[in-house]
Amino acid sequence: MKKSQSFFTQDKPASFRYYKPDRKVLGKKMADHLRFAVCYWHSFVWPGLDPFGGDTFQRPWHAAGGDGMKQAEHKADIAFELFRLTQAPYFTFHDRDIAPEGATLRESNRNVRKIGEVFEKKMRKSGMKLLWGTANLFSHRRYMSGAATNPDPEVFAYAAAQVKNVLEMTHELKGENYVLWGGREGYETLLNTDVGRELDQLGKFLNLVVEHKHKIGFKGLILIEPKPAEPTKHQYDYDVATVYGFLRRYGLEKEVKVNIEQNHALLAGHTFEHEIALAYALGIFGSIDMNRGDEQSGWDTDQFPNNLPQMALAMYHIIKGGGFTSGGLNFDAKVRRQSIDPDDLVIAHAEAMDLCARALLIAEKMIDDGKLGQAVDARYAGWKGKMGRDILAGKMSLAKLAAHVEKTDLEPQPRSGGQERLEGLVNRYI
Amino acid sequence: MKKSQSFFTQDKPASFRYYKPDRKVLGKKMADHLRFAVCYWHSFVWPGLDPFGGDTFQRPWHAAGGDGMKQAEHKADIAFELFRLTQAPYFTFHDRDIAPEGATLRESNRNVRKIGEVFEKKMRKSGMKLLWGTANLFSHRRYMSGAATNPDPEVFAYAAAQVKNVLEMTHELKGENYVLWGGREGYETLLNTDVGRELDQLGKFLNLVVEHKHKIGFKGLILIEPKPAEPTKHQYDYDVATVYGFLRRYGLEKEVKVNIEQNHALLAGHTFEHEIALAYALGIFGSIDMNRGDEQSGWDTDQFPNNLPQMALAMYHIIKGGGFTSGGLNFDAKVRRQSIDPDDLVIAHAEAMDLCARALLIAEKMIDDGKLGQAVDARYAGWKGKMGRDILAGKMSLAKLAAHVEKTDLEPQPRSGGQERLEGLVNRYI
Amino acid sequence: MKKSQSFFTQDKPASFRYYKPDRKVLGKKMADHLRFAVCYWHSFVWPGLDPFGGDTFQRPWHAAGGDGMKQAEHKADIAFELFRLTQAPYFTFHDRDIAPEGATLRESNRNVRKIGEVFEKKMRKSGMKLLWGTANLFSHRRYMSGAATNPDPEVFAYAAAQVKNVLEMTHELKGENYVLWGGREGYETLLNTDVGRELDQLGKFLNLVVEHKHKIGFKGLILIEPKPAEPTKHQYDYDVATVYGFLRRYGLEKEVKVNIEQNHALLAGHTFEHEIALAYALGIFGSIDMNRGDEQSGWDTDQFPNNLPQMALAMYHIIKGGGFTSGGLNFDAKVRRQSIDPDDLVIAHAEAMDLCARALLIAEKMIDDGKLGQAVDARYAGWKGKMGRDILAGKMSLAKLAAHVEKTDLEPQPRSGGQERLEGLVNRYI
Amino acid sequence: MKKSQSFFTQDKPASFRYYKPDRKVLGKKMADHLRFAVCYWHSFVWPGLDPFGGDTFQRPWHAAGGDGMKQAEHKADIAFELFRLTQAPYFTFHDRDIAPEGATLRESNRNVRKIGEVFEKKMRKSGMKLLWGTANLFSHRRYMSGAATNPDPEVFAYAAAQVKNVLEMTHELKGENYVLWGGREGYETLLNTDVGRELDQLGKFLNLVVEHKHKIGFKGLILIEPKPAEPTKHQYDYDVATVYGFLRRYGLEKEVKVNIEQNHALLAGHTFEHEIALAYALGIFGSIDMNRGDEQSGWDTDQFPNNLPQMALAMYHIIKGGGFTSGGLNFDAKVRRQSIDPDDLVIAHAEAMDLCARALLIAEKMIDDGKLGQAVDARYAGWKGKMGRDILAGKMSLAKLAAHVEKTDLEPQPRSGGQERLEGLVNRYI
Repeated sequence: MKKSQSFFTQDKPASFRYYKPDRKVLGKKMADHLRFAVCYWHSFVWPGLDPFGGDTFQRPWHAAGGDGMKQAEHKADIAFELFRLTQAPYFTFHDRDIAPEGATLRESNRNVRKIGEVFEKKMRKSGMKLLWGTANLFSHRRYMSGAATNPDPEVFAYAAAQVKNVLEMTHELKGENYVLWGGREGYETLLNTDVGRELDQLGKFLNLVVEHKHKIGFKGLILIEPKPAEPTKHQYDYDVATVYGFLRRYGLEKEVKVNIEQNHALLAGHTFEHEIALAYALGIFGSIDMNRGDEQSGWDTDQFPNNLPQMALAMYHIIKGGGFTSGGLNFDAKVRRQSIDPDDLVIAHAEAMDLCARALLIAEKMIDDGKLGQAVDARYAGWKGKMGRDILAGKMSLAKLAAHVEKTDLEPQPRSGGQERLEGLVNRYI
Repeated sequence: MKKSQSFFTQDKPASFRYYKPDRKVLGKKMADHLRFAVCYWHSFVWPGLDPFGGDTFQRPWHAAGGDGMKQAEHKADIAFELFRLTQAPYFTFHDRDIAPEGATLRESNRNVRKIGEVFEKKMRKSGMKLLWGTANLFSHRRYMSGAATNPDPEVFAYAAAQVKNVLEMTHELKGENYVLWGGREGYETLLNTDVGRELDQLGKFLNLVVEHKHKIGFKGLILIEPKPAEPTKHQYDYDVATVYGFLRRYGLEKEVKVNIEQNHALLAGHTFEHEIALAYALGIFGSIDMNRGDEQSGWDTDQFPNNLPQMALAMYHIIKGGGFTSGGLNFDAKVRRQSIDPDDLVIAHAEAMDLCARALLIAEKMIDDGKLGQAVDARYAGWKGKMGRDILAGKMSLAKLAAHVEKTDLEPQPRSGGQERLEGLVNRYI
Repeated sequence: MKKSQSFFTQDKPASFRYYKPDRKVLGKKMADHLRFAVCYWHSFVWPGLDPFGGDTFQRPWHAAGGDGMKQAEHKADIAFELFRLTQAPYFTFHDRDIAPEGATLRESNRNVRKIGEVFEKKMRKSGMKLLWGTANLFSHRRYMSGAATNPDPEVFAYAAAQVKNVLEMTHELKGENYVLWGGREGYETLLNTDVGRELDQLGKFLNLVVEHKHKIGFKGLILIEPKPAEPTKHQYDYDVATVYGFLRRYGLEKEVKVNIEQNHALLAGHTFEHEIALAYALGIFGSIDMNRGDEQSGWDTDQFPNNLPQMALAMYHIIKGGGFTSGGLNFDAKVRRQSIDPDDLVIAHAEAMDLCARALLIAEKMIDDGKLGQAVDARYAGWKGKMGRDILAGKMSLAKLAAHVEKTDLEPQPRSGGQERLEGLVNRYI
Repeated sequence: MKKSQSFFTQDKPASFRYYKPDRKVLGKKMADHLRFAVCYWHSFVWPGLDPFGGDTFQRPWHAAGGDGMKQAEHKADIAFELFRLTQAPYFTFHDRDIAPEGATLRESNRNVRKIGEVFEKKMRKSGMKLLWGTANLFSHRRYMSGAATNPDPEVFAYAAAQVKNVLEMTHELKGENYVLWGGREGYETLLNTDVGRELDQLGKFLNLVVEHKHKIGFKGLILIEPKPAEPTKHQYDYDVATVYGFLRRYGLEKEVKVNIEQNHALLAGHTFEHEIALAYALGIFGSIDMNRGDEQSGWDTDQFPNNLPQMALAMYHIIKGGGFTSGGLNFDAKVRRQSIDPDDLVIAHAEAMDLCARALLIAEKMIDDGKLGQAVDARYAGWKGKMGRDILAGKMSLAKLAAHVEKTDLEPQPRSGGQERLEGLVNRYI
């Protein structure tokens, strides 16, 4: 543990102003509402490069020419040290984040499993839990044209083998969910792409995953993570609504849910709370990747969240929708490329956790006070009347409705939407 | 007809360089491929105002204080004169485009029907056909919070009555389709909105329309026109993929198809050809609104199309998908606010029709030459092999695929996507 | 005053939680920091229409067929009643907002001046002040192709005459600034535009305005309001940096400053605080239009501000830059089209004012605490060393610097930008 | 040369349908109009990675563990082989593209100069010319917070030393221009940034470069390449208008011009032709980076150009503005990450060159026909009348103009902008 002690300056877990894991909020512990997870890739794998520049972080386990497995173990030491310092109870990873790629998939899988054993020990000792695992089906050049949607069925097979390994390992580590992000399941140009065929391939792949999940007895959720584009020009899992249609098309709407990311919502032209509210409405809400996109940048910046009013509304919709079941709040966020001090990792997570807790407390006030919910209910009150009920019950045809309008010379009177009043109300909770 | 003769300078129909209605293209007449329609609203109803300025066109039938029905007839005269000059065989309209709103819906419907009778005569005489009709459920203040998705069921009823009238009139005028554009079926703020409830209302409404269509024996398609936003912050019919999920949710995927607009595709973050190709892949392609959005403006500019390579690719995907059945190519396009000469209307339509014809001839070359299609087929050829067929036939589980990968130490080799070569190929057809 | 009493429900001025006009903040009264203004156009002129729908507000003074001047006086009564209810000390207007257009410019100007006299009395009585006046050079069809940049010099002349009238009236009403927003000073298509010529015309126009300001002894600032587009495809006053270059080109950088709007900043791809900080850095900060754009919509939504953290940063940069001199905080914001109750106007302004006050108090904490400013100073501390000073003093050539690097084998070491730490710090003030 | 022969399949230079270097166009050879350059970085340095995946190209000179200088020479061999195959007469490079970074800047510069000597021989032998050189001041971690705008003056010094070396080498290789792209001259967050100070640093840096240029007798242009963002959140050289203001502020508007890129224009919210036309209007047009951005992606995709109508308009504005002097048309474009065949490099360049030639021939028709230019002239004809001339000559004050308007009761009549007619006209040339 020496290494990690010298890696971060501080040795004592971060302190918080708002986050008290055991504090009761709406009948549950704060920790059970928030279910924070630290992600492996941004904090331990990304070296600080961007499309115009190289490594800025110079983490010791990235040193060129090192022994891959040794470096992987060193990385795991530091990772669990960060988990301890931040006090987040969960973590998440891709297979390629935690162990080096081998000469064959067998070797790669073996590497992954070896680190899985390291994890198992560390988790037992620390109480750390796995929110979800996932397979990296997008970084290696074999996946450059997609994994499940690749024009080459051998790549589909390779991806299947890789998912099988991570799904089983996630199960063994008592992971609570399994995520699929289809980063390359899309296209660069329609000129070389058969969209219908690729959708069918993807539908088939997902069905195989669900089938395997049941076979091994994994009880967690299978989650798809919508994103509209990047790295591809178009990604098939564009947004929550698109994923819903896809799940319906391939008979999966009862089996698969969504992992919603703020930055991805933004790139798809939506607010975060829209995607959350819609997922609840469609019955496919699963988990979230809490981060933030830069509103002036057209790509995935994956910053730590920091806009309190927006976060409070997101938390409000999550709580109102019923909260997480096996899902949680994964920080799919990276410190900026210029934040090269190891301590920046601790600070970033701790500040974000505290702000999420603060957002939760605001959401609690919104729920407790009830005025927001009442305003919505009051607005739709007419639908509880006879005509409203008859319409929704299917008792009114177009002809009957028309007859009613004509007979009564109906002229409905609009009522104020009261947006400014409601926005003011929200600000009172903050 | 005197009025119209003095309205436009020219009396002779526009001449074309590429558009020859009877010219054979891929076994069909050019006119049967293109099925051009002129829309009523942009050319005869919009007075040239925008959010920062008023009327620029000063059409005589917009004069303040005039007799509404007289002005409606004058407008119809000019409209049919434009149809004659452009030689487009179809037109499209909203109920409110063609006749003034009355004191009650009964009176409004009566006004609409009276102009319907005027249309009927003019259509008989001129051979002009109706591509589709639609009801304006968004301009009047009663619809400010939605039509089917209004918090007030009376507005739902009013909208139903209005659609009934236009659907029946469309049927009587032998219209070939009926369109629903849900301009206000969305929200301004989630703070006052129950998304799940509103989706259910919309699903119910659409089911009533379909039911009524069958009841009256209307054989045309019912079409939804996707748009992501504007005037609302969020519109439920966001894009083709979203509409597909919606149709599945409410059991309508066999009954309803989409009318795709270039500008709406652009606003949703897609290319026009993406939306077309996806609609074919999902089996819901219906018709198109051919126009163009300004790529630097964040709103619906509804300009006449003029980017030949993009139009050629759109035509290519339409032809490849099977072409129009009852759908067609509606110019949902308006001359610019500064194009105040009546002749600008003729020029804009004629230039656009000619360019569409040119795009069709390019698509013909692409199809005839076959190289584009062959490149796609060749790219997916592996899926015709045993493993590909077995995967798609459901014979391979995750476990079997993994066993295969491990046994053979499979390492798939990527092949060039050849994008630049294909882009060069496309430019050879232009 | 009867009319206004029945127009708004409440008769008592709005109450506030944070806004106390006389409260001392950083040595000045809160009211002197904020200098709130209510704008005439959004609250009293806009009838609730948008590009897809008509009037929703049905204000009595918009009734068709009314006497224009009577309606203008009624509107003024209600306006001053709103000013009283909100307690904002300033207002702003365009000439066309306050009085009807006449048959000639002389008549229009006369109408404007008559209402000016009404204003004068009301201002004297109420203590209300004019933050700025401006001429509407964009709504009438004569301006459809620009005012100063019109291809027709007669339009330039007409615009000049209109500005002269409003500038003089602003002076007489003791207005503290005069604003020019070049809504149509741009182009729809380069195909019919000579950009260089139009820039020269605009430079000339602005010089005439400055010359006239001095001639009449007006001491207020002349302000340009940057906006990138809308209604035009491209507007010449794109953003603060563009306006700066324009002012330099036409010798006006000492005479003219900018009025910065949040929504316009957003449309130009910037944050509000960027535009503010840049304007201070370039020495051209003047005033602000406080509102907010919808981050998912591509057009000017002009909503009331409500994102507290963003507003606090904007206030911080204003205070840090020195605060307003003759400028102020104009609510260039309109209630939503569905907010049809007159009281929505009061609520919207009061909530916005209170939130601005809260943002100011947060900015006060940032300034008082000093940590944010210290972090920036510390980051650039190296520039206070010898080499830094020599470079900026012009004592180092490329050759000298290169010699130094080579001689010392200099290898500068990067230091963390500490972004997450600073973001966390900001959230502590909120 | 063996290596290169086996690298590309073809040995014979690419053939063209439109590009004939010696063909006369508007009195000049086609080659003298187009001045094509191949860029080193995209074609020989980028390994195919993106933010979500690694190397796809596996070029032999990128092999891990190789001898850096040997690999640099191999790369140079292949580069000149590509130049030969494409027949582009120019190339462009950054210092870090061509030779490996050493342990000190002295060593790095030595490496660069050694490859410079290799270039010199190859250039002499092949007739290949250098369009421009540039220093990479953005990839290494020392530049993570900017080069000239770094908070550390030592980084400023280091950058100065690096530029000095490349500027001198560019001069020695008879390079025709020198470019500065300020990829990191901007900020990630205003929270740690002093914008005014950084602008001053940048102004100083650029002045040193200009001073050194004169000192060594370099006659080429110094060019700034505008880009709004990426990798930074905000880049100081946002667009042409911003750069113009910057040059004025630091007294450089006569010394420095712009290198305009299509993709950067798009990211800044402009069309390519806007930036070109504006640069000519402001007198700072220098050179172009011909590529294309994906209109649905929010980042720099740097694709090869392929939209003929847009390219034709860009060429039209270049020719109309006077054409290139020392500037040229650099393909700042990379083959897609999936285009892994070496031949894709040849195909991409050859197709792009041919399309540029075709665009030039269309521009020639536009110029020869003259109708586009005449339409613009006719639109502004009024400015040649007495009032127009008097206004521009400064003979009319606001007061005089107002007196004229009032005396004549002037009411200017708008004329059609004719946009659709002009768009139709443009399509006739294609």
